[in-house]
Parts: sequence; structure tokens; C-alpha cells
Amino acid sequence: MPGIALGAEQWRARNVRFLLHGDKARIEAEFAQHPAARDLCEIRHTDQVISGDEKPAQAMRRGKGSSLWNAVEAVRDGQAQAAVSSGNTGALMAVSKLLLRMIVPDLERPAIVVSWPNPRGYTTILDMGANIDCDAERLVDFAIMGEAFHRAVHGAARPSVGLLNVGTEDQKGKEDVREAHRLLSEGGLNLDYRGFVEGSDISKGTVDVIVTDGFTGNVALKTAEGVARFISAELRAALTSSLITKIGAFIAQGALRKLRDRIDPPDGGPLLGLNGIVVKSHGGTDPKGFANAIRVAVDLAQSEFASEIRRNLEQLTAALNVEASTGGASAEPNG
Amino acid sequence: MPGIALGAEQWRARNVRFLLHGDKARIEAEFAQHPAARDLCEIRHTDQVISGDEKPAQAMRRGKGSSLWNAVEAVRDGQAQAAVSSGNTGALMAVSKLLLRMIVPDLERPAIVVSWPNPRGYTTILDMGANIDCDAERLVDFAIMGEAFHRAVHGAARPSVGLLNVGTEDQKGKEDVREAHRLLSEGGLNLDYRGFVEGSDISKGTVDVIVTDGFTGNVALKTAEGVARFISAELRAALTSSLITKIGAFIAQGALRKLRDRIDPPDGGPLLGLNGIVVKSHGGTDPKGFANAIRVAVDLAQSEFASEIRRNLEQLTAALNVEASTGGASAEPNG
Repeated sequence: MPGIALGAEQWRARNVRFLLHGDKARIEAEFAQHPAARDLCEIRHTDQVISGDEKPAQAMRRGKGSSLWNAVEAVRDGQAQAAVSSGNTGALMAVSKLLLRMIVPDLERPAIVVSWPNPRGYTTILDMGANIDCDAERLVDFAIMGEAFHRAVHGAARPSVGLLNVGTEDQKGKEDVREAHRLLSEGGLNLDYRGFVEGSDISKGTVDVIVTDGFTGNVALKTAEGVARFISAELRAALTSSLITKIGAFIAQGALRKLRDRIDPPDGGPLLGLNGIVVKSHGGTDPKGFANAIRVAVDLAQSEFASEIRRNLEQLTAALNVEASTGGASAEPNG
Repeated sequence: MPGIALGAEQWRARNVRFLLHGDKARIEAEFAQHPAARDLCEIRHTDQVISGDEKPAQAMRRGKGSSLWNAVEAVRDGQAQAAVSSGNTGALMAVSKLLLRMIVPDLERPAIVVSWPNPRGYTTILDMGANIDCDAERLVDFAIMGEAFHRAVHGAARPSVGLLNVGTEDQKGKEDVREAHRLLSEGGLNLDYRGFVEGSDISKGTVDVIVTDGFTGNVALKTAEGVARFISAELRAALTSSLITKIGAFIAQGALRKLRDRIDPPDGGPLLGLNGIVVKSHGGTDPKGFANAIRVAVDLAQSEFASEIRRNLEQLTAALNVEASTGGASAEPNG
């Protein structure tokens, strides 16, 4: 509720309304403390909950009627345009896939997106861990979905797209990555594809959208988070190491606080590839984070996001079919 | 030369002597400015150089007689116990492989090691980009080599080893990684193997040695470097944003300088898997970095590094042979 209350003016201006799934008495009690935007909300009571340690398979069997399930079901039934949840990620993915179905048939699971800070704004990077083994077509799917996400949420008219690799020359890297490079270069997709990028480009902002498989993406994200935490801890230690440095840090404290806000990735990553919008929030306890996750869901729901993905996916399928019917990857699209 | 001069006392105490390969007149001119340790050095003149942009194949065809080639050749011929070079990495790998041969027959190319700072010291991580596609046996080779490196250079009596994955449960991740996990758990190697670790563990120092394929390792390292650079730049910007913050930063400048030293990985990564010690320095222009690369080479040469690797590799081969002769991966070692 504090997250909804925090963005009350924004929601009102954008005609957003909320269906809140959960324990009615508890939700009402929270509204007593954070009354803003109460009139935008309808409460749908349930006392069933999927816990944080429940396995996805359990959630699918026993989750029916829980708040998470009901939120996704409301999207399927057209009662809501998007679901936002700070619940169990595995359960949210499994229930979303079951109820909404994948719009991208190659994908085993919805792809997870993160917005990583760079000097100009944010780098959209996916997949962050849902799809471990990815062939070239899945990587191209990610490029299509990530580009549409970046336009809808980060406001670039024509986001640039790069493919994560170990170097920028054409002959470098894994075969699937090189094949995805070929498809993105020649597939006739409506994307501003810029070729290979490297790990350092995530924080540089060389391109708007970086595409990689879920294994590499998960390692890259967790490595980045680890480095950011390590440096913050060392900075704190350095600045509290003596009275002199403490005085310096005290004087500069406003700037240091701004720095912390600047280097944290914002909350709210959508699960991409579904017939419907589902956004995962990790900051269930931080109103600012949850408000941002809602903002991401509203941006996606009020944009051309879904139709843009559909158009590029059809183009990709057409390009692949031409290749198949003319005997393989080396054929020209008009051959 | 400044790097050699900087460590003069250390080299003398450890009985180190240097063969310097390069342009004799230029080297003598540098010694005129940095005379310390001149008596420990013998100059071997050559005016041939492999340039930074030369391809490995060119370096192998035309590099004979160059300073890089001669340095590695001196190791092959037993005139030197180790080679240190800040030259072209691809050329150094190709020439080292040609002249010294791989001691680890599975590997296409020598593995590259990086020491990444953590709160307790350094995390050894490999491969950082030489071997893109790695099966389970190669990952186990990296574990063996990385562990011996960590003991020799970072001084842990019994370094702990982890395998980089997207989660810590047994059933997670790619098949090759899960198979390497099985080999490391059951292969009877003399390693303190701790199981799976995640990207965030690189900066946490959860284990001493982290093993991964060259694709993932390269992305992780470059991501980490990018994040560190981004945060440093944002910190600088935050601290120079106003007169007040500048005063604070000025007061705390000693601590901030120490922080910079703390979060930079040290120079000097060996090429592992060769019959001989070759260390790559990237800081050709920074005497402190080059002195550290020399220190790494001396640590490796004056330790049991080579014999420890040989012993564990033999153990691995024996374990794999037992598996093969008893009909595959599911057999017990004593079956």
C-alpha cells in the first residue's frame, strides 16, 4: 500500500486503477495509515498465500486461489492489464506461464529483464537467469522483447541493441552468439542492431539493450551487484577509518547519498514473452521500489509494447521460414 | 626497468636474476635512470618486436627472434624459470603454446587467471577468456591449476574452490557445469572443493578459487571492471559537484586514494596449462604493476606449483579412466 500511496498523483493522472489481491483486513489496516489513492483500489480478498520457499511445481498445483494466482488470473481474464508481484519469482514465472501462455514459443520460461544504471540512464539487459541454454533464435527473441521494453519504459524512440560477447570482431565467441549476430544483421527486423558488445559495456551504456543467455546474464548481474556492494562497503570503511575522514564524509554526505541512489538498479523487472504483462518487484518492503515496479507495469500497459513485439516476431518467423525453404542459413532472404 | 628497480631488494633477497630481451641501447638508457638491480640483469639484444595489433598466427610465423619469442624460448631451454611480458596477449599465448606445449592436453589454449579483490584478499578466477567452449574436464583442469596458483601466489595453505553457476542447488545450471561438479565432488582430487558459487561470490570471497568457462569468465571480469569504473566516475562526480563536497573530498582524500588501490585487481596473470611459467602483465607502463607481475612469476617458480598440478592431473586422468573402463559416468570409482 505505501508504494501505491507514494505514486497516488501519478496514478490518478494516468487513469490507473488497482485490484488488490490479499487479506482484506490487513490491506484495510494499511490503508488506514496510507490513505492516498484508496479510491483507486478495489480489494479482492484471499487468505491463501504462496510462500517464498515454495517450489514452482508446488505453486502450480496448490497455488490456485492465492493472491499471486489471482493477480495473474485477472490479467488472463482481461480484468487487469498488468500484474505486479513481489512474491516468489519461480512461482510467479510458473503460474504466469500456465495462465497466460508464452507468446514466444521458443522460450521455455519468461525472460527476466534488469535495468542497469549507466552514465546516461539505464542499460536494459536480458535474460537474467530464466533460460539457461539459449540458441540463436531465443537470443533474437530477447533482442525483440528487450527493445520494445526499453522504448516503453526508458523512453528511447529507437533503442540500440547489442549482443554480449567476448570481443567485438565478427569471428569471436560462441557459435549460437555468432548465429544470432547473423540473424540480427540480416533478418530484416525493425531494430537498431549495433553488433557485439562486451561486459564492460553494461555500465558504459554503449547500447540501450544488451542481449545474452540466462546463464551469462545471471552471472553478469550478480557479479555486478557483488562489485557494487564490495566497493560501497570499502568506501564506507575508508570514510570511517579516522576522525578526519569522518569529517570529510559528513561534509559530503548529501553527495554520497545521491551516489547510492545512482548506482542501485531500480526495482521492477517484467517477465517477458508472455501473453500479458507481469512485473516482478523485489522490493516488497521499500515503497519507492514498489512504486517504480508499478510505474514499469503502467508504462508497458499504456504503450505499443505488445504489438511491437508481435510485429518483429512475425518478421523473424518469416525470415527463418524463407531460409528453411531455400535450404538453410546461407540463403538470401529473397532467394 | 622501473618495475625491476622498484622491487630490487625483494629480488636480491629471493635470489632472482633477470634476462632482459629487447633493444640493448634503450634498456641501458633506462637503467641510467633506474640503476637499482642493474647487477641482477643480463641483456639479450634484439631489435625485433611483435606489435600490439599483430594476429597470433602472424606472430607464430614471423615472431622468431623477437623479444617476446626469445623470452619464452629461454624458458623452454631452461635458461629462465619464468617469462614475464606486457606484450600482445594473443601472440604471447600462441608463441607460448608453440614453444612450451600444453601440459594439460584437453586445453586448446592456456587459461588466463585474474586475482579479483575481496574483503579478505583476492579471489582467483579463471578462465578469463582464452577457452570459450569448455566441457566438464576442462573446468576440472581449471580447478586444479587455479588452486595451485592460489596457494603459490596468495599464500593460502589449502585454497577452497567453487564452480560458478546460476544457483547453489545441485540440479541448477548447464550440463557441463553439473558434470564438472560431479567430477570435483567424486574424483578423488586433493582439492577443498565447496560446490557451486554465484557471480556475487567473486567480490565476496566466499571461496578462494572460482572456476568457469572462458566466455562466462570474460563477461564477468569485464562487467566487474565496468561497474568499478562507473562507480569511481560517479563518486568523483558526486564529490566534485559543489564546493562543500569538494572540501569533504579534500579532507578524506587519503582514504579515497587507499580505496582506489584496494578495488583495482593487481597486475600479473599467468597463462596456465603450459610446460613452463609465463606471466602476462597489462601494466607495461606502471612500474608497480610490472613489479607485481614479476613477483607472481617468482612465487610460481619458487613453489611446488608445477608438481602439484601434475599430481592432481594424474589423479583426474586415473579417475576418468576407471569410469571409462567400468562403462561410464555412473560407475563407482572402485566398481
